[in-house]
Amino acid sequence: MIVVMKSGAQPSAIQEVSDRLLELGYQVNPIFGVEKTIIGAVGGSEHGKVDFIDQLRSYADVEDVILITKPYKFVAIESRPNRTVIDLGNGVHIGGNDVVTMAGPCTVESEEQLMETAEAVAKAGATILRGGAYKPSTSPYSYQGMGVPGLELLKDAGNRFGLKVITEVMDLRKVELVAQYADILQIGTRNMQNYDLLKEVGQSKIPVMLKRGMTAKIEEWLLAAEYIAAGGNDQIMLCERGVRTFETATRNTLDLSAIPLLKTLTHLPIIVDPSQGTGRRDLVGPMSKAAVACGADGLIIEVHPHPDHAIKDGAQSMTIPAFQQLMPELSQISVAVGRSMATLRELTVT
Amino acid sequence: MIVVMKSGAQPSAIQEVSDRLLELGYQVNPIFGVEKTIIGAVGGSEHGKVDFIDQLRSYADVEDVILITKPYKFVAIESRPNRTVIDLGNGVHIGGNDVVTMAGPCTVESEEQLMETAEAVAKAGATILRGGAYKPSTSPYSYQGMGVPGLELLKDAGNRFGLKVITEVMDLRKVELVAQYADILQIGTRNMQNYDLLKEVGQSKIPVMLKRGMTAKIEEWLLAAEYIAAGGNDQIMLCERGVRTFETATRNTLDLSAIPLLKTLTHLPIIVDPSQGTGRRDLVGPMSKAAVACGADGLIIEVHPHPDHAIKDGAQSMTIPAFQQLMPELSQISVAVGRSMATLRELTVT
Amino acid sequence: MIVVMKSGAQPSAIQEVSDRLLELGYQVNPIFGVEKTIIGAVGGSEHGKVDFIDQLRSYADVEDVILITKPYKFVAIESRPNRTVIDLGNGVHIGGNDVVTMAGPCTVESEEQLMETAEAVAKAGATILRGGAYKPSTSPYSYQGMGVPGLELLKDAGNRFGLKVITEVMDLRKVELVAQYADILQIGTRNMQNYDLLKEVGQSKIPVMLKRGMTAKIEEWLLAAEYIAAGGNDQIMLCERGVRTFETATRNTLDLSAIPLLKTLTHLPIIVDPSQGTGRRDLVGPMSKAAVACGADGLIIEVHPHPDHAIKDGAQSMTIPAFQQLMPELSQISVAVGRSMATLRELTVT
Amino acid sequence: MIVVMKSGAQPSAIQEVSDRLLELGYQVNPIFGVEKTIIGAVGGSEHGKVDFIDQLRSYADVEDVILITKPYKFVAIESRPNRTVIDLGNGVHIGGNDVVTMAGPCTVESEEQLMETAEAVAKAGATILRGGAYKPSTSPYSYQGMGVPGLELLKDAGNRFGLKVITEVMDLRKVELVAQYADILQIGTRNMQNYDLLKEVGQSKIPVMLKRGMTAKIEEWLLAAEYIAAGGNDQIMLCERGVRTFETATRNTLDLSAIPLLKTLTHLPIIVDPSQGTGRRDLVGPMSKAAVACGADGLIIEVHPHPDHAIKDGAQSMTIPAFQQLMPELSQISVAVGRSMATLRELTVT
Repeated sequence: MIVVMKSGAQPSAIQEVSDRLLELGYQVNPIFGVEKTIIGAVGGSEHGKVDFIDQLRSYADVEDVILITKPYKFVAIESRPNRTVIDLGNGVHIGGNDVVTMAGPCTVESEEQLMETAEAVAKAGATILRGGAYKPSTSPYSYQGMGVPGLELLKDAGNRFGLKVITEVMDLRKVELVAQYADILQIGTRNMQNYDLLKEVGQSKIPVMLKRGMTAKIEEWLLAAEYIAAGGNDQIMLCERGVRTFETATRNTLDLSAIPLLKTLTHLPIIVDPSQGTGRRDLVGPMSKAAVACGADGLIIEVHPHPDHAIKDGAQSMTIPAFQQLMPELSQISVAVGRSMATLRELTVT
Repeated sequence: MIVVMKSGAQPSAIQEVSDRLLELGYQVNPIFGVEKTIIGAVGGSEHGKVDFIDQLRSYADVEDVILITKPYKFVAIESRPNRTVIDLGNGVHIGGNDVVTMAGPCTVESEEQLMETAEAVAKAGATILRGGAYKPSTSPYSYQGMGVPGLELLKDAGNRFGLKVITEVMDLRKVELVAQYADILQIGTRNMQNYDLLKEVGQSKIPVMLKRGMTAKIEEWLLAAEYIAAGGNDQIMLCERGVRTFETATRNTLDLSAIPLLKTLTHLPIIVDPSQGTGRRDLVGPMSKAAVACGADGLIIEVHPHPDHAIKDGAQSMTIPAFQQLMPELSQISVAVGRSMATLRELTVT
Repeated sequence: MIVVMKSGAQPSAIQEVSDRLLELGYQVNPIFGVEKTIIGAVGGSEHGKVDFIDQLRSYADVEDVILITKPYKFVAIESRPNRTVIDLGNGVHIGGNDVVTMAGPCTVESEEQLMETAEAVAKAGATILRGGAYKPSTSPYSYQGMGVPGLELLKDAGNRFGLKVITEVMDLRKVELVAQYADILQIGTRNMQNYDLLKEVGQSKIPVMLKRGMTAKIEEWLLAAEYIAAGGNDQIMLCERGVRTFETATRNTLDLSAIPLLKTLTHLPIIVDPSQGTGRRDLVGPMSKAAVACGADGLIIEVHPHPDHAIKDGAQSMTIPAFQQLMPELSQISVAVGRSMATLRELTVT
Repeated sequence: MIVVMKSGAQPSAIQEVSDRLLELGYQVNPIFGVEKTIIGAVGGSEHGKVDFIDQLRSYADVEDVILITKPYKFVAIESRPNRTVIDLGNGVHIGGNDVVTMAGPCTVESEEQLMETAEAVAKAGATILRGGAYKPSTSPYSYQGMGVPGLELLKDAGNRFGLKVITEVMDLRKVELVAQYADILQIGTRNMQNYDLLKEVGQSKIPVMLKRGMTAKIEEWLLAAEYIAAGGNDQIMLCERGVRTFETATRNTLDLSAIPLLKTLTHLPIIVDPSQGTGRRDLVGPMSKAAVACGADGLIIEVHPHPDHAIKDGAQSMTIPAFQQLMPELSQISVAVGRSMATLRELTVT
């Protein structure tokens, strides 16, 4: 921790802050400059000491306090010799050399819709089926999801076409319930800092995909993941889904630089959502390619057999033929960066 | 709803969209321009129809879809002849001619700290005591609050000094519990779109203060309030607490223009949080004055007897003497805008 | 300057950076922590040393470099014992106890329009006339201003009604020309970092009002002012005019917290533009009050006799009666914060 | 243009607005809904009519005015049957099937530095040399560039190693001068809305690269390009260089979705600057790959022989070996998306 004193701070004020730092367990090294004095405070880990920053900032003669160690631990790259690889079974791994594709409708609407989509995306190479049974809607008058029947359809579709299932959980009382049907629990962007929910999935035994909050800084995102890890669940993947900016031509601004940046900070796998990230079907293909090119470990893509009749997100849902065309193109990019990606598969429908 | 067709859209495409609109229950009025065709779709309320927008956007020849009616109903200014006034009892009203002051520590730390603060802010004119028993912390290693003992202290302090109590509820399983101790439930910025929590407080009988999400648009904020109202609880106040921007010199950017803007859109009272809104104690006074000057119905201010030993938010907490000095200054502003504000009170400590 | 080394940095890497710092003229104080080493580098002023930061950041083992002194000098509050007061003559001062009002049309359109507006705002208490003769327009097909005839009208109106004149200069070749007609040169938001223009007005002898760039940080804004001051012109005022955020309900987000914040950093007067800052006529009054309440030294307000026929910015222009009504209300706020504001004046039209 | 009337607007108010629209040359089609009336106004092009929007918004009963035609013309995709390909001579084309690489130092520092870099980047496959002779610096105390001697060095290096030259022009009085040395004029992010400068390069005969403003919306960016095109210069390329957001871990947030989006709106070629876009050398490689994967027509990359002694931007400058390693990787991505990219070249040094 570095404490920067205001210019003109008296020796007594510097002493007062130094004393407080000693009291908090730090070794104290003041550096007296011509204009300002800075106090270097070192000693042990700073985990759990973030609260001290505000105390020190409240001294009248303190100009700034700078934390020099990362406030997260389990999710930090230093904490593991190797990158996290999440094994979902049946040969589906997230975070290894393969780039995975999660695909499916925004919302589970009916058996027909889901089965048609699931079969098509499975054949095209997706290994994980996405679909919402509980939908976070900005308006209380929007569709809120099928609930349990939707979960059942997801599980059926997964079994039938050999797909793993990812679906969102919003209500912390339903974590256990949703975990009975899903292979991955999704925490949505609006709940990235719903700490009680994070604690709850931290106690679950199944993998969690944590979406970035609408304007979460990278550090806040990793701290949200740390909540899950601290609860005992270390099967976490991060999902970049665009951040909110001034731009109105796209729904969000997809921050792909977060991918290589996160690779320097954490061992967790990183998924990209180009559907939410752009809000426009015609941008999903190019942004999927870009995501794979800069190191994404997977993609989550909205696909619907009839986007113009989709209950939600039709404008950003790919049609099935468009998705089928995209997959081999993505595969070529993955090869160009030394990775591989499942495409055309022959299915044994069960 | 207005559907803007792409330039060059064929008559058949225009017909197809028109048919879909008719199917969705709209009257359809196409306007054929030289460059583009627009389709005006009117008929009944558009509440609940927000989901159609995305369906229509998914047509290949549709360039844009514009909703022309407000998507919220209960909280809209048109829904009530008069502004909402929330009566907390003991002569404390929110939304009337009086400007109310909520004050107290960020976090309940101890009986001594809370009682000292409560007495001081009550004497200075605050009528509502703030204080957190459950704290949303960015880091899992930060202080998470005292829990129930904190709630008990709040209730005691309120009773003792004749103050109403506001405190945050984060976990939807604890809404009823917190409501036993508090007069106002606070929904924090991170939970503005935690819809299950909103639904839960919507079923509570006590008033709710809904903080603006870190980058919530005005419309999203009102829709979040609509979730609460739709659940049956119409005692809602909104709290502007700053939005996230590129600026790093302040913790957030306090958006005071939201106050007069909201006054044109909703009948709900509006509170301002200059402590969170700026993150700097020295800016709390000026921004409180500005908030009252442009029409705020109340303020929520962090006050701590020893900010340099505060567990949280010391840098933005006012000292007691500073708060005592501010209150009469605020009173003068309130008079200048034709309102009034409690200041110096003689307390009958019970 | 503080250099934070990456955790695991070898002594040789630390030595290499230390050597470079010595070479750059710093005294070097390394602090060896358990996790990380930080190097405190002090010595003389850091003005002009901002370029070193990037050099130091480019070392592989350097994690971060933090500048601890302010990069601006002339405009810093430390550089002057008193706040800057700009004397425009005829008793008009900016930055003193009086709050000044600049008012007038967005654009000079005709003699009739300008004279009608000038007379009205002068009678209502404005002491400075605003109006654009050169207009920065987002579209090349928008009106670009009357040019010299517009400047002549401004000067005439100023003389006739005893008003000082402020107008924008965009083209650095026209600084001298505009200065012949105006009492204050305005640098618009789009030109805040047009450094050649800043240098040019830095050599002018008349006061300059520097608008904040659309997303300028406070520090960048002060550095832009420093360009002008470094050129020799110390009659500078800053103008907050809203910043760009995600919000679409207002044209910009007016950042009033910039006012009290700037008061802690600089001695320059601060003006607020609630017209540009909100883009909505109905928000101009409340935000003007808020600006005065939190310490603005002046306001610049768009007023037009017929906003619905205004060439530009009609939606944010006040009508003359609305402006006449606002001024005494603002005066009351100014009194409540211990300042004063001209209102109703009897004019000797010349 | 669509005018949305407020709910409750009287027939007389609707008539008044309709009359004004007729007066402005529109055909008027009102649509009377249950809640609101909307007025469709069509007729001819809306270019040059953007100013009317504000007039209409200023009517008391008008809620919103929506422009339905694009405000730009020359740069719109509809205006040309084919995409623009800029021919720089010697087989260097921008906007065709080849992806071009511009590389070189942020700032021209010395003959030695420039020649070493130019030779290396040319050998690695770059065909255009970048380097600043006039530098826009946030601080007046930062290095401002070598000026004409820098331009001379750039021209020499270009000639010697068979490279075209791009360099920034800031001062509109120097457009002609810089054009004598450069093959492409760069307009920097801070000058995207310096309209007098845009007009000046609009009259130049050489190609222009227009960087996106720090928080420019796509439409504003295209309108800035329209200024250049309207002046007569149609050899324009756009350069995405990151936008300003709340994120502090990167210097800017590179908005790669702008590339496929722009491809739907304009025929102009699109270049990406991953150096400015991220501010971190270690992110330049991945983001370059992503840019090529989603359709960029070229890259502009900062390369320096000794970043830790670079006068500017060392932290985001690649070393020569890193650049040499990146180029063949980029080439593989370009092949994967059906394009090609120059790499290893044998130079005939002249």
